[in-house]
Amino acid sequence: MPDFDSLLFAHASRVGETLEALLGERSSGAEVMRPPRLMEAMRYSVLSGGKRIRPFFLMECARLFDVDPAVSVRAAAALECIHCYSLVHDDLPAMDDDDLRRGKPTTHVAYDEAMAILAGDGLLTMAFDIIAHPDTHPDAEVRSRLVGLFAQNAGAGGMVGGQVLDIAAESKALTEPEILQLQAMKTGALIRCACESGAILGEASPEEQAILLEYGHLAGQAFQLADDILDVTSDQQTMGKKTAKDAIAGKGTLVSLLGLDASRKRARELLEQAIATLEPFGQRASVLIDVARFTVERKN
Amino acid sequence: MPDFDSLLFAHASRVGETLEALLGERSSGAEVMRPPRLMEAMRYSVLSGGKRIRPFFLMECARLFDVDPAVSVRAAAALECIHCYSLVHDDLPAMDDDDLRRGKPTTHVAYDEAMAILAGDGLLTMAFDIIAHPDTHPDAEVRSRLVGLFAQNAGAGGMVGGQVLDIAAESKALTEPEILQLQAMKTGALIRCACESGAILGEASPEEQAILLEYGHLAGQAFQLADDILDVTSDQQTMGKKTAKDAIAGKGTLVSLLGLDASRKRARELLEQAIATLEPFGQRASVLIDVARFTVERKN
Repeated sequence: MPDFDSLLFAHASRVGETLEALLGERSSGAEVMRPPRLMEAMRYSVLSGGKRIRPFFLMECARLFDVDPAVSVRAAAALECIHCYSLVHDDLPAMDDDDLRRGKPTTHVAYDEAMAILAGDGLLTMAFDIIAHPDTHPDAEVRSRLVGLFAQNAGAGGMVGGQVLDIAAESKALTEPEILQLQAMKTGALIRCACESGAILGEASPEEQAILLEYGHLAGQAFQLADDILDVTSDQQTMGKKTAKDAIAGKGTLVSLLGLDASRKRARELLEQAIATLEPFGQRASVLIDVARFTVERKN
Repeated sequence: MPDFDSLLFAHASRVGETLEALLGERSSGAEVMRPPRLMEAMRYSVLSGGKRIRPFFLMECARLFDVDPAVSVRAAAALECIHCYSLVHDDLPAMDDDDLRRGKPTTHVAYDEAMAILAGDGLLTMAFDIIAHPDTHPDAEVRSRLVGLFAQNAGAGGMVGGQVLDIAAESKALTEPEILQLQAMKTGALIRCACESGAILGEASPEEQAILLEYGHLAGQAFQLADDILDVTSDQQTMGKKTAKDAIAGKGTLVSLLGLDASRKRARELLEQAIATLEPFGQRASVLIDVARFTVERKN
Protein backbone atom coordinates (compact mmCIF):
# COMPACT_ATOMS: atom_id res chain seq x y z
CA MET A 1 0.00 0.00 0.00
CA PRO A 2 1.68 3.25 -1.10
CA ASP A 3 1.67 6.09 1.36
CA PHE A 4 -0.71 9.00 0.84
CA ASP A 5 1.80 11.42 -0.69
CA SER A 6 2.87 8.87 -3.30
CA LEU A 7 -0.74 8.15 -4.17
CA LEU A 8 -1.54 11.85 -4.50
CA PHE A 9 1.45 12.23 -6.78
CA ALA A 10 0.58 9.14 -8.82
CA HIS A 11 -3.01 10.26 -9.40
CA ALA A 12 -1.88 13.80 -10.27
CA SER A 13 0.58 12.39 -12.81
CA ARG A 14 -2.11 10.27 -14.35
CA VAL A 15 -4.43 13.26 -14.63
CA GLY A 16 -1.63 15.31 -16.18
CA GLU A 17 -0.88 12.62 -18.76
CA THR A 18 -4.55 12.30 -19.66
CA LEU A 19 -4.87 16.05 -20.10
CA GLU A 20 -1.67 16.08 -22.18
CA ALA A 21 -3.16 13.47 -24.48
CA LEU A 22 -6.55 15.19 -24.73
CA LEU A 23 -4.91 18.52 -25.50
CA GLY A 24 -2.38 16.95 -27.87
CA GLU A 25 -1.76 18.68 -31.14
CA ARG A 26 -3.28 16.02 -33.31
CA SER A 27 -7.07 16.00 -33.07
CA SER A 28 -9.37 13.13 -33.86
CA GLY A 29 -11.44 14.56 -36.73
CA ALA A 30 -9.58 14.95 -40.02
CA GLU A 31 -11.15 18.30 -40.84
CA VAL A 32 -10.80 19.69 -37.36
CA MET A 33 -8.24 22.40 -36.87
CA ARG A 34 -7.50 23.59 -33.38
CA PRO A 35 -5.48 26.84 -33.46
CA PRO A 36 -2.01 26.07 -32.03
CA ARG A 37 -1.79 29.21 -29.90
CA LEU A 38 -5.18 28.51 -28.34
CA MET A 39 -4.14 24.95 -27.56
CA GLU A 40 -0.92 26.27 -26.06
CA ALA A 41 -2.87 28.67 -23.81
CA MET A 42 -5.23 25.86 -22.78
CA ARG A 43 -2.28 23.58 -22.00
CA TYR A 44 -0.60 26.39 -20.07
CA SER A 45 -3.77 26.87 -18.02
CA VAL A 46 -4.34 23.25 -17.16
CA LEU A 47 -0.89 21.63 -17.14
CA SER A 48 0.74 23.97 -14.67
CA GLY A 49 0.82 21.53 -11.81
CA GLY A 50 -1.47 21.92 -8.88
CA LYS A 51 -2.38 19.22 -6.41
CA ARG A 52 -5.24 17.86 -8.55
CA ILE A 53 -7.21 17.46 -5.36
CA ARG A 54 -10.63 17.37 -7.07
CA PRO A 55 -9.56 14.59 -9.44
CA PHE A 56 -8.16 12.74 -6.41
CA PHE A 57 -11.51 12.91 -4.61
CA LEU A 58 -13.27 11.68 -7.74
CA MET A 59 -10.90 8.81 -8.46
CA GLU A 60 -10.80 7.62 -4.86
CA CYS A 61 -14.58 7.80 -4.41
CA ALA A 62 -14.95 5.78 -7.62
CA ARG A 63 -12.38 3.29 -6.39
CA LEU A 64 -14.63 2.47 -3.42
CA PHE A 65 -16.78 0.75 -6.06
CA ASP A 66 -13.86 -0.89 -7.83
CA VAL A 67 -13.58 1.60 -10.69
CA ASP A 68 -10.02 1.46 -11.97
CA PRO A 69 -8.26 4.88 -11.80
CA ALA A 70 -7.24 4.25 -15.43
CA VAL A 71 -10.94 4.66 -16.26
CA SER A 72 -12.07 7.29 -13.75
CA VAL A 73 -9.15 9.51 -14.75
CA ARG A 74 -11.15 10.77 -17.75
CA ALA A 75 -14.00 12.17 -15.65
CA ALA A 76 -11.36 13.43 -13.20
CA ALA A 77 -9.51 15.23 -16.01
CA ALA A 78 -12.79 16.78 -17.18
CA LEU A 79 -13.42 18.10 -13.69
CA GLU A 80 -9.90 19.54 -13.58
CA CYS A 81 -10.58 21.34 -16.90
CA ILE A 82 -13.56 23.01 -15.26
CA HIS A 83 -11.56 23.92 -12.17
CA CYS A 84 -8.71 25.37 -14.24
CA TYR A 85 -11.01 27.32 -16.57
CA SER A 86 -12.56 28.92 -13.49
CA LEU A 87 -9.12 29.96 -12.24
CA VAL A 88 -8.26 31.51 -15.61
CA HIS A 89 -11.47 33.52 -15.71
CA ASP A 90 -11.33 34.48 -12.02
CA ASP A 91 -7.78 35.80 -12.48
CA LEU A 92 -8.82 38.18 -15.29
CA PRO A 93 -8.37 41.94 -14.76
CA ALA A 94 -12.15 42.43 -14.76
CA MET A 95 -12.44 39.92 -11.90
CA ASP A 96 -9.78 39.27 -9.24
CA ASP A 97 -6.98 40.76 -11.38
CA ASP A 98 -4.29 38.31 -10.28
CA ASP A 99 -0.97 38.02 -12.07
CA LEU A 100 0.45 35.02 -10.22
CA ARG A 101 -0.93 31.49 -9.99
CA ARG A 102 0.99 28.43 -8.84
CA GLY A 103 4.15 30.53 -8.97
CA LYS A 104 3.71 31.39 -12.66
CA PRO A 105 2.18 34.32 -14.55
CA THR A 106 -1.58 33.87 -14.93
CA THR A 107 -2.88 33.00 -18.39
CA HIS A 108 -3.89 36.53 -19.37
CA VAL A 109 -0.42 37.77 -18.39
CA ALA A 110 1.39 34.98 -20.24
CA TYR A 111 -0.87 35.41 -23.31
CA ASP A 112 -3.44 38.18 -23.38
CA GLU A 113 -6.94 38.78 -22.06
CA ALA A 114 -8.76 37.63 -25.19
CA MET A 115 -6.78 34.40 -25.30
CA ALA A 116 -7.37 33.81 -21.59
CA ILE A 117 -11.13 34.23 -21.98
CA LEU A 118 -11.15 31.88 -24.97
CA ALA A 119 -8.80 29.31 -23.39
CA GLY A 120 -11.18 29.21 -20.42
CA ASP A 121 -14.18 28.82 -22.71
CA GLY A 122 -12.35 26.06 -24.58
CA LEU A 123 -11.50 24.16 -21.39
CA LEU A 124 -15.04 24.35 -20.04
CA THR A 125 -16.43 23.11 -23.35
CA MET A 126 -13.85 20.34 -23.63
CA ALA A 127 -14.82 19.03 -20.20
CA PHE A 128 -18.25 18.10 -21.51
CA ASP A 129 -16.80 16.53 -24.65
CA ILE A 130 -14.63 14.32 -22.44
CA ILE A 131 -17.50 13.23 -20.19
CA ALA A 132 -19.85 12.47 -23.08
CA HIS A 133 -17.33 10.16 -24.78
CA PRO A 134 -17.98 6.41 -24.39
CA ASP A 135 -14.43 5.91 -23.03
CA THR A 136 -15.53 7.71 -19.86
CA HIS A 137 -18.15 5.06 -19.08
CA PRO A 138 -19.79 2.45 -21.31
CA ASP A 139 -23.30 3.33 -20.10
CA ALA A 140 -24.70 6.50 -21.71
CA GLU A 141 -27.10 6.88 -18.78
CA VAL A 142 -24.10 7.26 -16.45
CA ARG A 143 -22.42 9.74 -18.81
CA SER A 144 -25.59 11.81 -19.07
CA ARG A 145 -25.96 11.93 -15.30
CA LEU A 146 -22.34 13.07 -15.01
CA VAL A 147 -22.88 15.82 -17.59
CA GLY A 148 -25.91 17.10 -15.66
CA LEU A 149 -24.09 16.89 -12.32
CA PHE A 150 -21.01 18.71 -13.64
CA ALA A 151 -23.12 21.42 -15.29
CA GLN A 152 -25.23 22.00 -12.18
CA ASN A 153 -22.22 22.25 -9.90
CA ALA A 154 -20.20 24.40 -12.30
CA GLY A 155 -23.02 26.75 -13.34
CA ALA A 156 -25.14 29.60 -12.03
CA GLY A 157 -26.39 27.54 -9.06
CA GLY A 158 -22.84 26.40 -8.26
CA MET A 159 -19.34 27.65 -9.01
CA VAL A 160 -20.22 30.53 -11.38
CA GLY A 161 -22.89 31.75 -8.97
CA GLY A 162 -20.36 31.51 -6.14
CA GLN A 163 -17.95 33.73 -8.02
CA VAL A 164 -20.73 36.31 -8.44
CA LEU A 165 -21.35 36.22 -4.68
CA ASP A 166 -17.60 36.49 -4.08
CA ILE A 167 -17.33 39.65 -6.17
CA ALA A 168 -20.36 41.14 -4.43
CA ALA A 169 -18.70 40.34 -1.07
CA GLU A 170 -16.05 42.97 -1.74
CA SER A 171 -18.56 45.72 -1.13
CA LYS A 172 -20.47 44.43 1.87
CA ALA A 173 -19.82 42.55 5.10
CA LEU A 174 -21.16 39.00 5.01
CA THR A 175 -22.77 37.12 7.86
CA GLU A 176 -21.61 33.60 8.68
CA PRO A 177 -24.50 31.93 6.79
CA GLU A 178 -23.73 34.12 3.76
CA ILE A 179 -20.06 33.13 3.85
CA LEU A 180 -20.97 29.45 4.12
CA GLN A 181 -23.36 29.80 1.17
CA LEU A 182 -20.72 31.56 -0.93
CA GLN A 183 -18.07 28.95 -0.16
CA ALA A 184 -20.46 26.04 -0.68
CA MET A 185 -20.97 27.36 -4.20
CA LYS A 186 -17.59 28.81 -5.20
CA THR A 187 -15.33 25.99 -4.04
CA GLY A 188 -17.63 23.47 -2.36
CA ALA A 189 -19.65 22.67 -5.48
CA LEU A 190 -16.77 21.11 -7.45
CA ILE A 191 -15.57 19.08 -4.45
CA ARG A 192 -19.07 17.73 -3.82
CA CYS A 193 -19.29 17.09 -7.56
CA ALA A 194 -16.01 15.14 -7.47
CA CYS A 195 -17.26 12.86 -4.69
CA GLU A 196 -20.73 12.37 -6.12
CA SER A 197 -19.29 11.73 -9.60
CA GLY A 198 -17.12 8.99 -8.19
CA ALA A 199 -20.23 7.34 -6.78
CA ILE A 200 -22.09 7.69 -10.10
CA LEU A 201 -19.15 6.31 -12.09
CA GLY A 202 -19.07 3.38 -9.69
CA GLU A 203 -22.84 2.87 -10.02
CA ALA A 204 -23.15 3.15 -6.26
CA SER A 205 -26.51 2.78 -4.50
CA PRO A 206 -28.47 6.00 -3.79
CA GLU A 207 -27.52 5.60 -0.09
CA GLU A 208 -23.82 5.32 -0.87
CA GLN A 209 -24.05 8.28 -3.23
CA ALA A 210 -25.72 10.35 -0.50
CA ILE A 211 -22.95 9.47 1.95
CA LEU A 212 -20.26 10.58 -0.47
CA LEU A 213 -22.13 13.79 -1.23
CA GLU A 214 -22.22 14.55 2.51
CA TYR A 215 -18.55 13.60 2.84
CA GLY A 216 -17.73 15.95 -0.06
CA HIS A 217 -19.78 18.71 1.52
CA LEU A 218 -17.89 18.46 4.82
CA ALA A 219 -14.46 17.89 3.27
CA GLY A 220 -15.09 20.86 0.96
CA GLN A 221 -15.92 23.11 3.90
CA ALA A 222 -12.81 21.93 5.72
CA PHE A 223 -10.71 22.50 2.59
CA GLN A 224 -11.99 26.06 2.20
CA LEU A 225 -11.49 26.89 5.85
CA ALA A 226 -7.91 25.60 5.65
CA ASP A 227 -7.43 27.79 2.58
CA ASP A 228 -8.67 30.86 4.43
CA ILE A 229 -6.37 30.05 7.36
CA LEU A 230 -3.38 29.66 5.00
CA ASP A 231 -4.30 32.97 3.34
CA VAL A 232 -3.64 34.60 6.71
CA THR A 233 -0.76 32.47 8.04
CA SER A 234 1.28 31.55 4.96
CA ASP A 235 3.26 33.63 2.48
CA GLN A 236 3.39 34.05 -1.29
CA GLN A 237 6.57 31.95 -1.57
CA THR A 238 4.91 28.90 -0.01
CA MET A 239 1.53 29.31 -1.68
CA GLY A 240 2.66 30.23 -5.20
CA LYS A 241 0.00 32.92 -5.24
CA LYS A 242 -0.70 36.18 -3.45
CA THR A 243 -1.69 35.81 0.19
CA ALA A 244 -3.63 38.04 2.58
CA LYS A 245 -5.77 38.70 -0.48
CA ASP A 246 -9.03 38.45 1.38
CA ALA A 247 -8.05 41.02 3.99
CA ILE A 248 -6.73 43.39 1.33
CA ALA A 249 -9.90 43.02 -0.73
CA GLY A 250 -11.95 43.61 2.40
CA LYS A 251 -13.59 40.22 1.97
CA GLY A 252 -14.98 38.62 5.05
CA THR A 253 -14.02 34.98 5.59
CA LEU A 254 -14.78 32.68 8.47
CA VAL A 255 -11.29 33.43 9.76
CA SER A 256 -11.93 37.17 9.99
CA LEU A 257 -15.31 36.46 11.58
CA LEU A 258 -14.34 33.71 14.06
CA GLY A 259 -10.64 34.40 14.59
CA LEU A 260 -7.75 32.04 13.90
CA ASP A 261 -8.06 29.72 16.90
CA ALA A 262 -11.79 29.14 16.55
CA SER A 263 -11.29 28.60 12.79
CA ARG A 264 -8.67 25.93 13.40
CA LYS A 265 -10.98 24.25 15.87
CA ARG A 266 -13.85 24.38 13.38
CA ALA A 267 -11.64 22.88 10.64
CA ARG A 268 -10.76 19.97 12.94
CA GLU A 269 -14.43 19.45 13.76
CA LEU A 270 -15.38 19.42 10.09
CA LEU A 271 -12.60 16.92 9.44
CA GLU A 272 -13.89 14.61 12.17
CA GLN A 273 -17.43 14.92 10.81
CA ALA A 274 -16.24 14.14 7.28
CA ILE A 275 -14.39 11.07 8.52
CA ALA A 276 -17.44 9.93 10.49
CA THR A 277 -19.62 9.88 7.37
CA LEU A 278 -17.31 7.24 5.90
CA GLU A 279 -17.92 4.78 8.70
CA PRO A 280 -20.24 2.51 6.63
CA PHE A 281 -17.38 1.88 4.16
CA GLY A 282 -15.03 0.66 6.92
CA GLN A 283 -11.40 0.12 6.07
CA ARG A 284 -12.02 0.60 2.33
CA ALA A 285 -12.36 4.35 2.90
CA SER A 286 -8.95 4.84 4.50
CA VAL A 287 -7.62 6.90 1.57
CA LEU A 288 -10.65 9.20 1.75
CA ILE A 289 -9.85 9.73 5.43
CA ASP A 290 -6.26 10.52 4.48
CA VAL A 291 -7.23 13.05 1.82
CA ALA A 292 -9.69 14.83 4.11
CA ARG A 293 -6.93 15.07 6.72
CA PHE A 294 -4.48 16.28 4.07
CA THR A 295 -6.79 19.10 2.92
CA VAL A 296 -6.88 20.45 6.47
CA GLU A 297 -3.26 19.85 7.46
CA ARG A 298 -1.51 20.90 4.22
CA LYS A 299 0.99 23.73 4.26
CA ASN A 300 0.10 25.18 0.84
CA MET B 1 -49.56 25.48 -43.73
CA PRO B 2 -48.28 28.73 -42.18
CA ASP B 3 -46.01 30.89 -44.30
CA PHE B 4 -42.30 30.94 -43.57
CA ASP B 5 -42.25 34.21 -41.62
CA SER B 6 -45.00 33.03 -39.28
CA LEU B 7 -43.19 29.75 -38.70
CA LEU B 8 -39.91 31.54 -37.97
CA PHE B 9 -41.75 33.76 -35.50
CA ALA B 10 -43.59 30.82 -33.89
CA HIS B 11 -40.39 28.81 -33.38
CA ALA B 12 -38.55 31.86 -32.03
CA SER B 13 -41.38 32.48 -29.56
CA ARG B 14 -41.28 28.89 -28.42
CA VAL B 15 -37.51 29.08 -27.92
CA GLY B 16 -37.92 32.33 -25.98
CA GLU B 17 -40.58 30.82 -23.72
CA THR B 18 -38.41 27.77 -23.07
CA LEU B 19 -35.43 29.93 -22.18
CA GLU B 20 -37.65 32.08 -19.94
CA ALA B 21 -38.73 28.98 -18.06
CA LEU B 22 -35.20 27.56 -17.79
CA LEU B 23 -33.84 30.87 -16.53
CA GLY B 24 -36.83 31.44 -14.24
CA GLU B 25 -36.12 32.65 -10.78
CA ARG B 26 -37.20 29.54 -8.98
CA SER B 27 -34.71 26.71 -9.40
CA SER B 28 -35.37 23.01 -9.04
CA GLY B 29 -33.04 22.06 -6.17
CA ALA B 30 -34.13 23.27 -2.74
CA GLU B 31 -30.64 24.23 -1.63
CA VAL B 32 -29.66 25.82 -4.91
CA MET B 33 -29.35 29.57 -4.96
CA ARG B 34 -28.77 31.32 -8.26
CA PRO B 35 -27.69 34.95 -7.67
CA PRO B 36 -30.51 37.21 -8.97
CA ARG B 37 -28.22 39.68 -10.70
CA LEU B 38 -26.39 36.88 -12.53
CA MET B 39 -29.69 35.42 -13.67
CA GLU B 40 -30.76 38.87 -14.82
CA ALA B 41 -27.56 39.26 -16.88
CA MET B 42 -28.03 35.79 -18.36
CA ARG B 43 -31.64 36.58 -19.25
CA TYR B 44 -30.57 39.91 -20.74
CA SER B 45 -27.98 38.11 -22.88
CA VAL B 46 -30.26 35.41 -24.20
CA LEU B 47 -33.76 36.93 -24.23
CA SER B 48 -32.95 39.99 -26.30
CA GLY B 49 -34.69 38.78 -29.41
CA GLY B 50 -32.69 37.69 -32.41
CA LYS B 51 -33.96 35.53 -35.23
CA ARG B 52 -33.21 32.25 -33.42
CA ILE B 53 -32.02 30.90 -36.74
CA ARG B 54 -29.90 28.08 -35.24
CA PRO B 55 -32.82 26.77 -33.18
CA PHE B 56 -34.95 26.97 -36.32
CA PHE B 57 -32.50 24.80 -38.27
CA LEU B 58 -32.41 22.30 -35.41
CA MET B 59 -36.16 22.10 -34.91
CA GLU B 60 -36.92 21.82 -38.61
CA CYS B 61 -34.25 19.17 -39.24
CA ALA B 62 -35.67 17.18 -36.32
CA ARG B 63 -39.18 17.63 -37.69
CA LEU B 64 -38.14 15.76 -40.86
CA PHE B 65 -38.12 12.72 -38.57
CA ASP B 66 -41.39 13.59 -36.86
CA VAL B 67 -39.88 15.09 -33.71
CA ASP B 68 -42.42 17.51 -32.27
CA PRO B 69 -41.04 21.06 -31.93
CA ALA B 70 -42.39 20.99 -28.35
CA VAL B 71 -39.67 18.39 -27.68
CA SER B 72 -36.82 19.57 -29.92
CA VAL B 73 -37.15 23.09 -28.50
CA ARG B 74 -35.05 22.07 -25.49
CA ALA B 75 -32.01 21.13 -27.55
CA ALA B 76 -32.68 24.22 -29.68
CA ALA B 77 -32.73 26.43 -26.58
CA ALA B 78 -29.46 24.87 -25.41
CA LEU B 79 -27.86 25.69 -28.75
CA GLU B 80 -29.12 29.26 -28.50
CA CYS B 81 -27.52 29.54 -25.04
CA ILE B 82 -24.20 28.62 -26.62
CA HIS B 83 -24.69 31.09 -29.46
CA CYS B 84 -25.60 33.90 -27.07
CA TYR B 85 -22.77 33.19 -24.65
CA SER B 86 -20.37 33.46 -27.60
CA LEU B 87 -21.81 36.87 -28.53
CA VAL B 88 -21.42 38.12 -24.95
CA HIS B 89 -17.78 37.03 -24.77
CA ASP B 90 -16.97 38.21 -28.32
CA ASP B 91 -18.37 41.66 -27.52
CA LEU B 92 -16.06 42.11 -24.49
CA PRO B 93 -13.53 44.97 -24.55
CA ALA B 94 -10.65 42.48 -24.70
CA MET B 95 -12.17 40.95 -27.85
CA ASP B 96 -14.28 42.84 -30.42
CA ASP B 97 -15.15 45.64 -27.96
CA ASP B 98 -18.71 46.18 -29.18
CA ASP B 99 -21.22 48.25 -27.28
CA LEU B 100 -24.30 47.54 -29.40
CA ARG B 101 -26.01 44.24 -30.13
CA ARG B 102 -29.50 43.80 -31.53
CA GLY B 103 -30.04 47.51 -30.98
CA LYS B 104 -29.32 47.31 -27.24
CA PRO B 105 -26.22 47.85 -25.09
CA THR B 106 -24.07 44.72 -24.98
CA THR B 107 -24.04 42.75 -21.72
CA HIS B 108 -20.78 44.20 -20.38
CA VAL B 109 -22.13 47.72 -21.02
CA ALA B 110 -25.51 47.02 -19.41
CA TYR B 111 -23.85 45.25 -16.45
CA ASP B 112 -20.07 45.14 -16.18
CA GLU B 113 -17.24 43.08 -17.60
CA ALA B 114 -17.04 40.60 -14.73
CA MET B 115 -20.77 39.94 -14.92
CA ALA B 116 -20.62 39.55 -18.71
CA ILE B 117 -17.83 36.98 -18.46
CA LEU B 118 -19.74 35.07 -15.78
CA ALA B 119 -23.11 35.32 -17.54
CA GLY B 120 -21.45 33.84 -20.63
CA ASP B 121 -19.86 31.07 -18.56
CA GLY B 122 -23.24 30.41 -16.95
CA LEU B 123 -25.05 30.17 -20.29
CA LEU B 124 -22.47 27.82 -21.80
CA THR B 125 -22.65 25.58 -18.73
CA MET B 126 -26.44 25.64 -18.65
CA ALA B 127 -26.59 24.47 -22.26
CA PHE B 128 -25.07 21.14 -21.26
CA ASP B 129 -27.37 20.82 -18.26
CA ILE B 130 -30.34 21.25 -20.59
CA ILE B 131 -29.12 18.67 -23.10
CA ALA B 132 -28.28 16.07 -20.46
CA HIS B 133 -31.76 16.23 -18.92
CA PRO B 134 -34.10 13.33 -19.79
CA ASP B 135 -36.76 15.79 -21.01
CA THR B 136 -34.52 16.55 -24.00
CA HIS B 137 -34.71 12.95 -25.23
CA PRO B 138 -35.69 9.74 -23.42
CA ASP B 139 -32.63 7.86 -24.70
CA ALA B 140 -29.43 8.71 -22.81
CA GLU B 141 -27.38 7.52 -25.79
CA VAL B 142 -28.97 10.29 -27.90
CA ARG B 143 -28.37 12.87 -25.18
CA SER B 144 -24.73 11.83 -24.84
CA ARG B 145 -24.20 12.10 -28.57
CA LEU B 146 -25.74 15.57 -28.52
CA VAL B 147 -23.46 16.67 -25.67
CA GLY B 148 -20.41 15.49 -27.59
CA LEU B 149 -21.57 17.11 -30.83
CA PHE B 150 -22.36 20.44 -29.14
CA ALA B 151 -19.02 20.45 -27.30
CA GLN B 152 -17.00 19.64 -30.41
CA ASN B 153 -18.70 22.32 -32.48
CA ALA B 154 -18.58 24.93 -29.74
CA GLY B 155 -15.02 24.25 -28.58
CA ALA B 156 -11.41 24.72 -29.66
CA GLY B 157 -11.94 22.80 -32.90
CA GLY B 158 -15.11 24.79 -33.65
CA MET B 159 -16.54 28.12 -32.57
CA VAL B 160 -13.96 29.07 -29.91
CA GLY B 161 -11.14 28.17 -32.30
CA GLY B 162 -12.84 30.24 -35.00
CA GLN B 163 -12.89 33.27 -32.73
CA VAL B 164 -9.15 32.84 -32.14
CA LEU B 165 -8.59 32.78 -35.92
CA ASP B 166 -10.85 35.81 -36.28
CA ILE B 167 -8.81 37.84 -33.80
CA ALA B 168 -5.58 36.78 -35.51
CA ALA B 169 -7.09 37.89 -38.85
CA GLU B 170 -6.95 41.51 -37.71
CA SER B 171 -3.20 41.52 -38.10
CA LYS B 172 -2.72 39.61 -41.35
CA ALA B 173 -4.38 39.27 -44.74
CA LEU B 174 -6.12 35.92 -45.15
CA THR B 175 -6.31 33.82 -48.29
CA GLU B 176 -9.64 32.47 -49.47
CA PRO B 177 -9.09 29.01 -47.95
CA GLU B 178 -8.13 30.64 -44.65
CA ILE B 179 -11.29 32.75 -44.65
CA LEU B 180 -13.41 29.69 -45.41
CA GLN B 181 -11.73 27.77 -42.60
CA LEU B 182 -12.28 30.64 -40.15
CA GLN B 183 -15.95 31.00 -41.08
CA ALA B 184 -16.56 27.24 -41.07
CA MET B 185 -15.41 27.30 -37.44
CA LYS B 186 -16.64 30.64 -36.10
CA THR B 187 -20.18 30.62 -37.46
CA GLY B 188 -20.45 27.46 -39.55
CA ALA B 189 -19.86 25.04 -36.67
CA LEU B 190 -23.04 25.91 -34.75
CA ILE B 191 -25.19 25.85 -37.89
CA ARG B 192 -23.83 22.42 -38.88
CA CYS B 193 -24.37 21.39 -35.26
CA ALA B 194 -28.00 22.56 -35.41
CA CYS B 195 -28.71 20.46 -38.49
CA GLU B 196 -26.85 17.38 -37.32
CA SER B 197 -28.48 17.62 -33.88
CA GLY B 198 -31.88 17.62 -35.50
CA ALA B 199 -30.96 14.38 -37.25
CA ILE B 200 -29.65 12.83 -34.03
CA LEU B 201 -32.75 13.88 -32.06
CA GLY B 202 -34.84 12.28 -34.79
CA GLU B 203 -32.73 9.11 -34.71
CA ALA B 204 -32.12 9.51 -38.44
CA SER B 205 -30.06 6.99 -40.40
CA PRO B 206 -26.33 7.73 -40.82
CA GLU B 207 -27.06 8.61 -44.48
CA GLU B 208 -29.76 11.10 -43.54
CA GLN B 209 -27.54 12.58 -40.87
CA ALA B 210 -24.72 13.03 -43.40
CA ILE B 211 -27.09 14.82 -45.79
CA LEU B 212 -28.19 17.26 -43.11
CA LEU B 213 -24.59 17.86 -42.08
CA GLU B 214 -23.75 18.75 -45.68
CA TYR B 215 -26.89 20.90 -45.93
CA GLY B 216 -25.85 22.69 -42.74
CA HIS B 217 -22.35 23.18 -44.07
CA LEU B 218 -23.59 24.84 -47.27
CA ALA B 219 -26.40 26.82 -45.63
CA GLY B 220 -23.89 28.02 -43.01
CA GLN B 221 -21.50 29.25 -45.69
CA ALA B 222 -24.35 31.01 -47.47
CA PHE B 223 -25.48 32.56 -44.19
CA GLN B 224 -22.01 33.90 -43.43
CA LEU B 225 -21.52 35.27 -46.92
CA ALA B 226 -24.88 37.06 -46.68
CA ASP B 227 -23.73 38.47 -43.33
CA ASP B 228 -20.51 39.79 -44.87
CA ILE B 229 -22.50 41.35 -47.74
CA LEU B 230 -24.88 43.03 -45.28
CA ASP B 231 -21.92 44.31 -43.28
CA VAL B 232 -20.95 46.28 -46.41
CA THR B 233 -24.38 47.21 -47.81
CA SER B 234 -26.59 47.75 -44.76
CA ASP B 235 -26.50 50.29 -41.95
CA GLN B 236 -26.48 50.19 -38.17
CA GLN B 237 -30.15 51.15 -37.96
CA THR B 238 -31.28 48.13 -39.96
CA MET B 239 -28.80 45.66 -38.45
CA GLY B 240 -29.06 46.67 -34.80
CA LYS B 241 -25.28 46.42 -34.55
CA LYS B 242 -22.31 48.27 -35.96
CA THR B 243 -21.72 47.76 -39.68
CA ALA B 244 -18.63 48.06 -41.88
CA LYS B 245 -16.89 46.53 -38.87
CA ASP B 246 -14.78 44.16 -40.92
CA ALA B 247 -13.40 46.89 -43.14
CA ILE B 248 -12.66 49.11 -40.13
CA ALA B 249 -10.93 46.25 -38.32
CA GLY B 250 -8.96 45.49 -41.50
CA LYS B 251 -10.42 42.00 -41.56
CA GLY B 252 -10.52 40.26 -44.90
CA THR B 253 -13.84 38.66 -45.81
CA LEU B 254 -14.88 36.93 -49.01
CA VAL B 255 -16.59 40.19 -50.00
CA SER B 256 -13.35 42.18 -49.78
CA LEU B 257 -11.55 39.40 -51.65
CA LEU B 258 -14.11 38.63 -54.38
CA GLY B 259 -16.04 41.91 -54.61
CA LEU B 260 -19.74 42.43 -54.03
CA ASP B 261 -21.11 41.04 -57.31
CA ALA B 262 -19.07 37.84 -57.24
CA SER B 263 -20.01 37.40 -53.58
CA ARG B 264 -23.70 37.68 -54.35
CA LYS B 265 -23.29 35.15 -57.14
CA ARG B 266 -21.41 32.80 -54.80
CA ALA B 267 -24.15 33.13 -52.16
CA ARG B 268 -26.78 32.15 -54.73
CA GLU B 269 -24.67 29.15 -55.81
CA LEU B 270 -24.27 27.99 -52.22
CA LEU B 271 -28.01 28.34 -51.75
CA GLU B 272 -28.72 26.19 -54.80
CA GLN B 273 -26.22 23.58 -53.60
CA ALA B 274 -27.78 23.54 -50.14
CA ILE B 275 -31.22 23.05 -51.65
CA ALA B 276 -29.92 20.27 -53.91
CA THR B 277 -28.69 18.22 -50.93
CA LEU B 278 -32.27 18.04 -49.66
CA GLU B 279 -33.56 16.30 -52.77
CA PRO B 280 -33.81 12.83 -51.10
CA PHE B 281 -36.32 14.25 -48.60
CA GLY B 282 -38.63 15.53 -51.34
CA GLN B 283 -41.53 17.77 -50.38
CA ARG B 284 -40.95 17.18 -46.65
CA ALA B 285 -37.89 19.45 -46.77
CA SER B 286 -39.70 22.52 -48.12
CA VAL B 287 -39.23 24.50 -44.90
CA LEU B 288 -35.49 23.78 -44.96
CA ILE B 289 -35.41 25.16 -48.49
CA ASP B 290 -37.26 28.25 -47.26
CA VAL B 291 -34.89 28.87 -44.38
CA ALA B 292 -31.80 28.49 -46.56
CA ARG B 293 -33.32 31.00 -48.95
CA PHE B 294 -34.18 33.31 -46.05
CA THR B 295 -30.61 33.31 -44.71
CA VAL B 296 -29.35 34.56 -48.07
CA GLU B 297 -32.12 36.98 -48.91
CA ARG B 298 -32.70 38.56 -45.48
CA LYS B 299 -32.26 42.29 -45.04
CA ASN B 300 -30.81 42.17 -41.51
